[in-house]
Amino acid sequence: MASSTVTGRYALRGVSAGKEDVHAAVDKLDRGIFAGAFCKITKDYLTGLKSRCNVIHSDGSGTKSIIAYLWYRETGDASVFRGISQDSIVMNIDDLLCIGAAERILLSNTVNRNAKNVGADALANLINGSEEFLGKLRKLGVKVFSGGGETADTGDLTGAVVVDSCAVAVMKRSEVITGDKIRPGLSIVGLSSWGKASYEDFENSGIGSNGLTSARHDMLCPYYRKAYPETYDANTPKKLVYCGPYMLDDKLPESRMTVGEALLSPTRTYAPVVMKLLKKHPGLVKGLVHCSGGGQTKCVRFGRGVHFVKDDMMPVPPIFKAIQSASGTGDSEMYEVYNMGHRMEVYCKPSDADKVVKVSKSFGIDARVIGRTEKSRRADGKNHVSIRCGDRVLEYGPRD
Amino acid sequence: MASSTVTGRYALRGVSAGKEDVHAAVDKLDRGIFAGAFCKITKDYLTGLKSRCNVIHSDGSGTKSIIAYLWYRETGDASVFRGISQDSIVMNIDDLLCIGAAERILLSNTVNRNAKNVGADALANLINGSEEFLGKLRKLGVKVFSGGGETADTGDLTGAVVVDSCAVAVMKRSEVITGDKIRPGLSIVGLSSWGKASYEDFENSGIGSNGLTSARHDMLCPYYRKAYPETYDANTPKKLVYCGPYMLDDKLPESRMTVGEALLSPTRTYAPVVMKLLKKHPGLVKGLVHCSGGGQTKCVRFGRGVHFVKDDMMPVPPIFKAIQSASGTGDSEMYEVYNMGHRMEVYCKPSDADKVVKVSKSFGIDARVIGRTEKSRRADGKNHVSIRCGDRVLEYGPRD
Repeated sequence: MASSTVTGRYALRGVSAGKEDVHAAVDKLDRGIFAGAFCKITKDYLTGLKSRCNVIHSDGSGTKSIIAYLWYRETGDASVFRGISQDSIVMNIDDLLCIGAAERILLSNTVNRNAKNVGADALANLINGSEEFLGKLRKLGVKVFSGGGETADTGDLTGAVVVDSCAVAVMKRSEVITGDKIRPGLSIVGLSSWGKASYEDFENSGIGSNGLTSARHDMLCPYYRKAYPETYDANTPKKLVYCGPYMLDDKLPESRMTVGEALLSPTRTYAPVVMKLLKKHPGLVKGLVHCSGGGQTKCVRFGRGVHFVKDDMMPVPPIFKAIQSASGTGDSEMYEVYNMGHRMEVYCKPSDADKVVKVSKSFGIDARVIGRTEKSRRADGKNHVSIRCGDRVLEYGPRD
Repeated sequence: MASSTVTGRYALRGVSAGKEDVHAAVDKLDRGIFAGAFCKITKDYLTGLKSRCNVIHSDGSGTKSIIAYLWYRETGDASVFRGISQDSIVMNIDDLLCIGAAERILLSNTVNRNAKNVGADALANLINGSEEFLGKLRKLGVKVFSGGGETADTGDLTGAVVVDSCAVAVMKRSEVITGDKIRPGLSIVGLSSWGKASYEDFENSGIGSNGLTSARHDMLCPYYRKAYPETYDANTPKKLVYCGPYMLDDKLPESRMTVGEALLSPTRTYAPVVMKLLKKHPGLVKGLVHCSGGGQTKCVRFGRGVHFVKDDMMPVPPIFKAIQSASGTGDSEMYEVYNMGHRMEVYCKPSDADKVVKVSKSFGIDARVIGRTEKSRRADGKNHVSIRCGDRVLEYGPRD
């Protein structure tokens, strides 16, 4: 069983899904007081209490903002950036969920823009979209508040716009989901990444905010290469730049959405589901994994001595089928880059799985047991992942 | 007295020093519980105490990272990015100082890089440089801790690297410097931005992290335009791109530094000075202004009914003389973009000014009374600024 890394089109476009060199640089650093947790957790520096801990978390919309930029430039519709605000926020909130933080979150946004290409109208939508989305989250019981933000005009650094957020929480140590309980013998319940949740206004394509560099180039056609040279890296081989079949307003196969709508579908937050689960069934959740960077292999970093067996994955959403069809990307890379159907995993005792499914479905989000944790079959006892994909089983080794 | 805005070379390069359209978008938002403070301050969302408040603050090294990138590409020396970490951190820390926050700060860094142009060696220096600088600050009594960070490969968004930080503090409301005490009748003590502080390892040019887009293009010669097209905005008129006289390793006039060293001189933190001042002389400090974006006109946003009279400015550092000489930029724009000699202002009673000067000089940082606050001379009573520059007086109106 060989250790797998993304070496395909994704890497040629200058993106390391596994972030090998980042981990090499970071791994020497202190991993915090719960080394196995989904996010780095520190002592309570902020208020100095032994019973508490802190988490400060940064992430952003990545290159998804470029698709919004293309839409904005093509249509003049600046409201498209509201979804980018949501992407940037949810990429933080849903990571925090995985350690059990869903209350008393303070958030800040940073926008680095090319002021000549991205006007005040876009900026207003980014800023107001963020406030609006946070207000919506609060109505859903997720207590997250804006503490401000920064906007910088950095046209020499970017032709479009970079949108990042930072989220902070002070937690009781006793309430942290530490990741240590991810051991053999659990069910893995996947929460669907697509469809329409009861708290969403529109159908979600399931795309999230990972793999968007490849998705954009593989789906969109050479028109964008010619029209928007400021939106791709001059280092990338031209045959991999906007080499897909679609315009943004083309229909996505097997879907009611256009390609643009599907690619820009704002990242779903699972906060209402996870909060209800934690409140209604205390102790049920043994672990949570946000399938973000690394896609369906993200889990391999968590728990100990585990073979993650995913043998009953949910249906693949049309957007990922279309990306695979357009790009010819292999299954192994697809599952390593995209969520392929569920973006949140709940680890629980097999006897509790039905309760998780029920809570998720109460929000209109499909869910099911997509697999289980078994004992590692590796000689070194390290974690590994097997994913059933049609008649094949994709195998992924440990990351560290 | 006309309201002044930067309409010169700075604006042509896509940078709004006054951030007019940002303020237009943001001004509708809640300004926090101390509306006149240097940073936005919120209720204590993080722990829910009425006696406390929160601040979450984001800023970064801006386009200064591009100069480090040029140095790195020319010399192969990745350690240059350590200074960029310091720039990004200090741009946050020194803003927080202005509200009195210098303890129990939690910090996170975000790096968006072009992974093909900016390798793992640069990343390691950014990450380790940040940890090292925070360790140094802690030894100086500034209790700031890293809570982690994010690195994203976003080569389609940037040809170089974008480095941002976010800093958070929980404060006692009673200890906040609210800005409301900036009224007529105070002395303005400027703390020098250049020379070598006792806690610095090298001489500082005074450049800080503002105005670096113009400084880079006005100082560096067309060689860089040809060699590094990934480091400038295609929208900028070519005659304003790397149109200066210097190579990075040329000598800076009137200085022992090279041009590259001077432009990359890491932003000085005033944290040790301000902390000593706050501890040794409680109540002395009526206000603090970090002369960042907006340069010497930054103060106009703070206090009420004030005419800021700056009639005894400190000597202009060689780096700013060289920038002005190379670019032919007018005095009015120079003082609106760069700090021109002091990057931190302490507002205090005239009888207390000597104490401030003494504390600053105890760290080897030159300081003096550079001016005073008088009653606004405008009919509408709004703040305005007068800066003596040789035989002229530069006048700046209110910003809001």
